[in-house]
Amino acid sequence: MSQLPPSPFSQRVRDGAAWLSGAGPESDVVISSRVRLARNLCGLPFVNRATPDDLGEVAKRVRGRAEALGAKGLAGGERGAGEACDRLWVDVHTLSALDRQLLVERHLISKELSKGDTPRGLIVSLPDERLSVMVNEEDHLRIQAVLPGLCLDEAWKVADRADDELEAGLDFAFHERFGYLTACPTNVGLGLRMSVMLHLPGLRLTGDIEKARRAAKDMSLTVRGFYGEGSEALGDLYQISNQTTLGKPEDAIHRELAAEIIPQVIQFERAARARLLQKRRSSLEDGVYRALGVLRACRLLTPEEALSLLSMVRLGVLMGLVTGVSEQAVNQLIVLTQPSHLQRLIGEEMDQQRRREARADLVRERLRGV
Amino acid sequence: MSQLPPSPFSQRVRDGAAWLSGAGPESDVVISSRVRLARNLCGLPFVNRATPDDLGEVAKRVRGRAEALGAKGLAGGERGAGEACDRLWVDVHTLSALDRQLLVERHLISKELSKGDTPRGLIVSLPDERLSVMVNEEDHLRIQAVLPGLCLDEAWKVADRADDELEAGLDFAFHERFGYLTACPTNVGLGLRMSVMLHLPGLRLTGDIEKARRAAKDMSLTVRGFYGEGSEALGDLYQISNQTTLGKPEDAIHRELAAEIIPQVIQFERAARARLLQKRRSSLEDGVYRALGVLRACRLLTPEEALSLLSMVRLGVLMGLVTGVSEQAVNQLIVLTQPSHLQRLIGEEMDQQRRREARADLVRERLRGV
Repeated sequence: MSQLPPSPFSQRVRDGAAWLSGAGPESDVVISSRVRLARNLCGLPFVNRATPDDLGEVAKRVRGRAEALGAKGLAGGERGAGEACDRLWVDVHTLSALDRQLLVERHLISKELSKGDTPRGLIVSLPDERLSVMVNEEDHLRIQAVLPGLCLDEAWKVADRADDELEAGLDFAFHERFGYLTACPTNVGLGLRMSVMLHLPGLRLTGDIEKARRAAKDMSLTVRGFYGEGSEALGDLYQISNQTTLGKPEDAIHRELAAEIIPQVIQFERAARARLLQKRRSSLEDGVYRALGVLRACRLLTPEEALSLLSMVRLGVLMGLVTGVSEQAVNQLIVLTQPSHLQRLIGEEMDQQRRREARADLVRERLRGV
Repeated sequence: MSQLPPSPFSQRVRDGAAWLSGAGPESDVVISSRVRLARNLCGLPFVNRATPDDLGEVAKRVRGRAEALGAKGLAGGERGAGEACDRLWVDVHTLSALDRQLLVERHLISKELSKGDTPRGLIVSLPDERLSVMVNEEDHLRIQAVLPGLCLDEAWKVADRADDELEAGLDFAFHERFGYLTACPTNVGLGLRMSVMLHLPGLRLTGDIEKARRAAKDMSLTVRGFYGEGSEALGDLYQISNQTTLGKPEDAIHRELAAEIIPQVIQFERAARARLLQKRRSSLEDGVYRALGVLRACRLLTPEEALSLLSMVRLGVLMGLVTGVSEQAVNQLIVLTQPSHLQRLIGEEMDQQRRREARADLVRERLRGV
């Protein structure tokens, strides 16, 4: 068990992630909102056809532009006066596997960006992490804004402003008829994806979750798990996002998702919770208290089981069935129980068995009753 | 939810059963020892061929004899000076279904005796319940002595003395060559069955329980669950008993079971526990604490799950992994969580859902930490 050397994120791990703060509108159901813009530089090949030198050139240009911008410029948005915001450039390809995984767990980079040794980078606004830019993922730039609760408006503003600021010093590939050019045709146009992360334990418990999934797919939405494509719906967490962008203006995308679909899902979930409380209260309480009981008692815990139990506890806290446990503590454990966060938090590299022990210790500590 | 009328056992329920006290030799593995003698009265047909009038006559004669005897006579054994012991006759066929089931749960009567409306009775020594006599079960009399821990010697003395006392005023069917005559040929001779109830969670956790079961069967022993024939090994509780008696003197039966087989099983179980502690300590602790965590947290609990979780907690207490929980509290919950005990304890007739709630409440209350 070797001590871990410090990393840029060593100090940031303890507090979890800002988008898991439990703040923001409709936060009983909506964990976070995310807007992503795909951009590519003119005159350099797309990432999948680029040489390492090309990728190095992309990274150099983006980094240069980011550093030329003031912190406020890139972080943007509705930041109040006096709120400082720093900006960090990370050479992802030079990080240890553990620290790359840490960034994946924080949803700052994708699994794809975390793999590989060719030049790739991340810009992230600190301390709020609301804005991040992946460099040399599928596209040269993937500008992302993530905020807690349902606030696609605000996330759009943050991403859009960063896009403008970056574009003012970078030449983005743009076609008069098609719009922004991207590596994958599904992104051509606005290069925009909007998504929200939802917590839907009520729909699972009433057995309606599959119905909701199918309805979302019928509306051409993508439904994915907590860790994106292919990941299961661990902890009853689902990411719902728009699937196509070509030919649709961004406000139509936004309106459809934020004003129609998501409010409907929120209403379904709330109705399911109300029904559970009314018709199956004792079995609901039993499930919630068992989950809390196991989290407070166990000595070994896998990340998957942690998410599934935390989901029930979160539901119990939100419904007022559990007192003495803060929603934020539960939310933050969603990311803190992930393997790399756990190891960074303890400051040690650990094998799986030791991680399971440390995870159980952490959860016990953080969920100790008042 | 109707209030239950008082029964002869209303007052006795709260404290559980004496044989679950956790006292006695080798009580880490051996819950209790039991000796049973089958006897029949001369001149009256066996139970399976008797008329209700015959059965009434049997009950009348046995009850008369029991009442003629002093309390000390029937309760017998090593009782110290000054220890009072009462004796209760119960007309089992006049009891409610709930109170019959209560006697089954206390292991005072068999399921068979509990069913049916023809005359049938129970004599039981109070307050210790160490001696009981079922009247008109498979045989006219089934004299039973049950004591906590491994003490077949003592149980034998208690049963033997009661047998002598009863026989002094009753004419038992006896054949010079075959011995005592019984309804089932496997009991002819001594009419004796010795058995011990074992708690074997270690052998289950190491995966050796089936091996032990097979070995016991190879030695012509009967291995049954907590509630006798056909009942599964709920709570890792097993009853092991001798299978045949004809032609074997009682001291051979006793020697084989008490001096050879049971000590060997005890040793296997202890070795399994030691191995778990040495090689799989964290997974053992995890299992124990999870069981305790669920028992202390749940709001709904079935009797089967209660037994299975209590088994883990008992193991944890015995191995010193859990403090602040008394072995006796855990032992007593084994019977107190059974449906009829639970209803008698609460004083209400309850449906299944309400019992599950009340069971969870009871367990939480009794296992509350210090």
